[in-house]
Amino acid sequence: MSSASTPVRVAILGASGYTGAELMRLLLRHPHVRITALTGERAAGKPVAEVFPHLAPYDLPALTRIADVDWTGVDFVFCGLPHGTTQEVIAALPAHVRICDLSADFRLFDVATYAEWYGHAHKAPVLQETAVYGLAEMARDQVAGARLVANPGCYPTASLLPLLPLLRQGLIAGDDIIIDAKSGVSGAGRDAKQGSLYCEVAEGMHAYGIASHRHAPEIEQSLGWAAGRTDLRVAFTPHLIPMNRGMMATTYVRLKDGATAADLRATLEQTYAGEAFVKVLSPGVGPQTRHVTGSNLALINVFPDRIPGRAILVSVIDNLMKGASGQAVQNFNIMHGFDETLGLDVIPVFP
Amino acid sequence: MSSASTPVRVAILGASGYTGAELMRLLLRHPHVRITALTGERAAGKPVAEVFPHLAPYDLPALTRIADVDWTGVDFVFCGLPHGTTQEVIAALPAHVRICDLSADFRLFDVATYAEWYGHAHKAPVLQETAVYGLAEMARDQVAGARLVANPGCYPTASLLPLLPLLRQGLIAGDDIIIDAKSGVSGAGRDAKQGSLYCEVAEGMHAYGIASHRHAPEIEQSLGWAAGRTDLRVAFTPHLIPMNRGMMATTYVRLKDGATAADLRATLEQTYAGEAFVKVLSPGVGPQTRHVTGSNLALINVFPDRIPGRAILVSVIDNLMKGASGQAVQNFNIMHGFDETLGLDVIPVFP
Amino acid sequence: MSSASTPVRVAILGASGYTGAELMRLLLRHPHVRITALTGERAAGKPVAEVFPHLAPYDLPALTRIADVDWTGVDFVFCGLPHGTTQEVIAALPAHVRICDLSADFRLFDVATYAEWYGHAHKAPVLQETAVYGLAEMARDQVAGARLVANPGCYPTASLLPLLPLLRQGLIAGDDIIIDAKSGVSGAGRDAKQGSLYCEVAEGMHAYGIASHRHAPEIEQSLGWAAGRTDLRVAFTPHLIPMNRGMMATTYVRLKDGATAADLRATLEQTYAGEAFVKVLSPGVGPQTRHVTGSNLALINVFPDRIPGRAILVSVIDNLMKGASGQAVQNFNIMHGFDETLGLDVIPVFP
Amino acid sequence: MSSASTPVRVAILGASGYTGAELMRLLLRHPHVRITALTGERAAGKPVAEVFPHLAPYDLPALTRIADVDWTGVDFVFCGLPHGTTQEVIAALPAHVRICDLSADFRLFDVATYAEWYGHAHKAPVLQETAVYGLAEMARDQVAGARLVANPGCYPTASLLPLLPLLRQGLIAGDDIIIDAKSGVSGAGRDAKQGSLYCEVAEGMHAYGIASHRHAPEIEQSLGWAAGRTDLRVAFTPHLIPMNRGMMATTYVRLKDGATAADLRATLEQTYAGEAFVKVLSPGVGPQTRHVTGSNLALINVFPDRIPGRAILVSVIDNLMKGASGQAVQNFNIMHGFDETLGLDVIPVFP
Repeated sequence: MSSASTPVRVAILGASGYTGAELMRLLLRHPHVRITALTGERAAGKPVAEVFPHLAPYDLPALTRIADVDWTGVDFVFCGLPHGTTQEVIAALPAHVRICDLSADFRLFDVATYAEWYGHAHKAPVLQETAVYGLAEMARDQVAGARLVANPGCYPTASLLPLLPLLRQGLIAGDDIIIDAKSGVSGAGRDAKQGSLYCEVAEGMHAYGIASHRHAPEIEQSLGWAAGRTDLRVAFTPHLIPMNRGMMATTYVRLKDGATAADLRATLEQTYAGEAFVKVLSPGVGPQTRHVTGSNLALINVFPDRIPGRAILVSVIDNLMKGASGQAVQNFNIMHGFDETLGLDVIPVFP
Repeated sequence: MSSASTPVRVAILGASGYTGAELMRLLLRHPHVRITALTGERAAGKPVAEVFPHLAPYDLPALTRIADVDWTGVDFVFCGLPHGTTQEVIAALPAHVRICDLSADFRLFDVATYAEWYGHAHKAPVLQETAVYGLAEMARDQVAGARLVANPGCYPTASLLPLLPLLRQGLIAGDDIIIDAKSGVSGAGRDAKQGSLYCEVAEGMHAYGIASHRHAPEIEQSLGWAAGRTDLRVAFTPHLIPMNRGMMATTYVRLKDGATAADLRATLEQTYAGEAFVKVLSPGVGPQTRHVTGSNLALINVFPDRIPGRAILVSVIDNLMKGASGQAVQNFNIMHGFDETLGLDVIPVFP
Repeated sequence: MSSASTPVRVAILGASGYTGAELMRLLLRHPHVRITALTGERAAGKPVAEVFPHLAPYDLPALTRIADVDWTGVDFVFCGLPHGTTQEVIAALPAHVRICDLSADFRLFDVATYAEWYGHAHKAPVLQETAVYGLAEMARDQVAGARLVANPGCYPTASLLPLLPLLRQGLIAGDDIIIDAKSGVSGAGRDAKQGSLYCEVAEGMHAYGIASHRHAPEIEQSLGWAAGRTDLRVAFTPHLIPMNRGMMATTYVRLKDGATAADLRATLEQTYAGEAFVKVLSPGVGPQTRHVTGSNLALINVFPDRIPGRAILVSVIDNLMKGASGQAVQNFNIMHGFDETLGLDVIPVFP
Repeated sequence: MSSASTPVRVAILGASGYTGAELMRLLLRHPHVRITALTGERAAGKPVAEVFPHLAPYDLPALTRIADVDWTGVDFVFCGLPHGTTQEVIAALPAHVRICDLSADFRLFDVATYAEWYGHAHKAPVLQETAVYGLAEMARDQVAGARLVANPGCYPTASLLPLLPLLRQGLIAGDDIIIDAKSGVSGAGRDAKQGSLYCEVAEGMHAYGIASHRHAPEIEQSLGWAAGRTDLRVAFTPHLIPMNRGMMATTYVRLKDGATAADLRATLEQTYAGEAFVKVLSPGVGPQTRHVTGSNLALINVFPDRIPGRAILVSVIDNLMKGASGQAVQNFNIMHGFDETLGLDVIPVFP
């Protein structure tokens, strides 16, 4: 465990996006962290106050280019660069630096699958072999010893938390998993895109990436591990919802071996009994995204379906927290032997 | 057909709710309609301008109590009363008055099913036998001759438009239909309920009535007819989305007999080829609720699923229009032999 | 007056923005219009369905480049190009084409003022001299005979409707007019800008262009005319509000000569008594933007202030309608001697 | 100063509203507080999890009726009861209990003014004489020694922070202060009112209580003190904005004695130089409500006006924080000699 008296010196690469801001919000209150570098290629030279006025009152370094970071002053990197640009940057980091990567670049362990979904060969396949998929509650031991943690995607986190324990225990069928997922707009990032404009997003909703979203293979990879098969395929439909934050997965599963929805709920309750961040709600209570806003919590529950032999799983997270920066800090804590909740004891903000 | 020179004299019962306002918006522009009575028990005596300031510039009668309506001046009633209160009111209407009922009171044709879901015996079972379920595109001939049309619910309309033709033609399985539905907040009505407050609804989402929503038996009734069975059950999960209007159904189906998603799409295209209000989008284009706002349009499409042998149906409507008042006017037009689009040629308002 | 049997052939330049979509929505229902050309430099070649899916069901020409328009098939141009690019385009139009320009390019009649606020010399000063400022209710006669109408900005329209009659009649002071204005996000246009992203706009508000917004000199120009002075200056603070449409001006004025708020209200009532689109609400009733959404209406009212000798004017419009495309169609109607409400009898959509 | 080892035992009266939830969020993280009682007359008997599901994971007492509170276990009361019901409740509290009252009941020190605006005689005039108006930055010494602090209203807080120092120093005129204020919807409370429904509030805005809002006399009371006069009147127009949280005041002032906007800004910078929660932004930077969401911060700035001799003040707060519960905790800290930021070091949540 790191000594509390020597803070971990942290750099955030790609700090000008929403996950970057969220990391700063959390790490500014982390007792064992000192933020020593923030990068943003286009925003290099600007103070944080200009990029994120809500952080103006806090003491933070100005943004720089990655090329200008002094790595001797950095122990740990949170990497929030766009997908595809991350591999070469991380491969070039000095050996003493440990990394939690929030991009998708190191999440798919089969580089052929990566190439298929991302349209180019993986640029750091050797590094890929050392990466750990950091779904924190499921991979604590591996995360603790890793140099490079691939922080899970928001949709996979929301989907896998209820599904993995159930599939691993053989309570649900693996060939009939239907995930209808919904996300707030911050998941689309801070780049200026017409599709993310207020007028294109507010007061309406739609599905996107139907049966073709890149989080599908990520979900299938974990479920396949749990089920012991490589050909597992899920129905996965993400929807864009007019809200800043929040993510919900409504998942339809077929029960195995006479299992009931109550059995599923009991299993999840048992699995997550000691967890700080994953809560199984009381029977019949439906999770709402607004009840986790700003926090690292995941709320889940199980409901019987009207179709005999089926059940419905509901899970919600804050996509920027447990779905990104919150889980990244949780992984950071695990990697350093810190209490997992350090920097994360943020109570949800409602309304 | 009614003569264009003699307008149909229309009363709207329960005119102080959102569907009432929408009916006024449409009927004020209908060339063959004169609105002669508006009722609202609590708002009786008030001018429309007070209840709906956006209608202040238009010439409309003040609200009255139902008991005070002079039925000799009314040819047709749109009934937008709360569920459960409608049966006795409609049963008491004079015989010359034809009715389009927007409540759920006459939608379930098995009075035992009604009693099970609504918690009391049906109060007008004889009248129920004469009612026609007015999913307009599916029941034109019956609607044309009906005295009492039960206007379909919003969720059933959005769900059934893509499902019914596919099930009737045996292209999809009837025992594995999963409807993940999403609605704007106006579907919850205008009554002052804490759960509908801005602060309880904005910037978040949740499922409600999971596997227990009253629109499930309504959907199952129509699908059961199409499939020729009475025990058909669907998974149906409604979600509340922070937007005024809009409804979306993402429906997961199992294909039969080697059918493909493309076959499904072709069938829907053929079914709705001549329809004014139902549009099958180009292959791959996802419907968005914001593209039908304010109009009577339904947009649908079909997508292949990642799970072999499955497909995904997507359909959107404006819940207050095709999901309520718009379809009611469409049925009114059919009942009078008018062009179906009269009063309904409203182009969607975007953004 | 144009003959009803020969439709006016209309081109919309810059049709891929929100005002373009709004013009299409209105003109598609205009009995004397045929849309023969739509331009969009970046979207050239695309069908409208791709640029504006909500217009997919309607019969419209594909987008082209301005250079490719056949002007022999065009009688009238609505010009919705970005500010600054319009002057040369309009100057190059053939003489038989009449124009309603929705940009700011021809609104400031003093070319020096134009140069000061827009940072470059006016490129069509001769044409500028022929332009008419089309605040429809105030300039009908001039508009009727104009070849080129400069359609007023949204903020000036909302502000001037209540102010002009009061200033002209000497009821309020000209040196102490304070306009606190608020706009929905569609006023910022459809270009992909970070500042217009949902996450940068929703759930918050701010002022912008404080004492430096380009609509200030436009407002001052008209007020100066009314007051007979050239040095009139107003306080004008626009705010960005998280809503798609809607504009409100809360205007604080000093009363002259013992005038009262009731006097002001009576004067406005008299001024707008016969107007189809401008309504003075009943005493004490506050205008709301949501009550004009989608319509060409302006609602105004006057309130006494707590500070003796002052009054408060409140006015609301839909910024895309009376604030842009609606007023443009109104001007088009005036220019052709049509009934002013043709294409504009759209009832507000609420909620 | 209270000993850190013995926590202050706190009761929150009226805990089922939004300010109650916010107090819990803050006090749960306060190192010297233990929440021992929560009251809610209608919600009595319910666990917090049912009233505020976002607080379900935290250890809090169930709600009770006020009559059932054991006052021997309470050192301090935060009172968030509806206006008008508070006086008798507070008057009946045992003498050892200190109070921060978030209602308006003890804010107006002239009981005649209270009676005029609230429609009934003050029920605890003797207690009123002991109350301190807790605009924290302005009244620290009095607050420190008070038994009963009247926590300022949200609008007065936002308005007075920039105005008070300027008026006190004679930089602005007192007879021409125009406050155009804007509030998020949570300011309207959690009661089920039609006017607060999502569909009545979203996608639109309006002014309310024009020249008749109860915060006007509260603002005038403080400004009158600063100016040394009792007849000071302000123009004050509140607007309802479709956002959960956030409050903004755009205030138009007349400069005195050759003062400039820069002078005003310098004065505010000096006044608030050492403050933890009030920040004067860099010249030209406009405060945005979204940059203080969830925090106790107030951001202010000053801009020159186009009208010579005038300036514009802009201030933003989170209405539930610095405008209510945050300032209440700040006052609590002052009353106990704690560091003023205890429980309040919450970084704004954006987006």
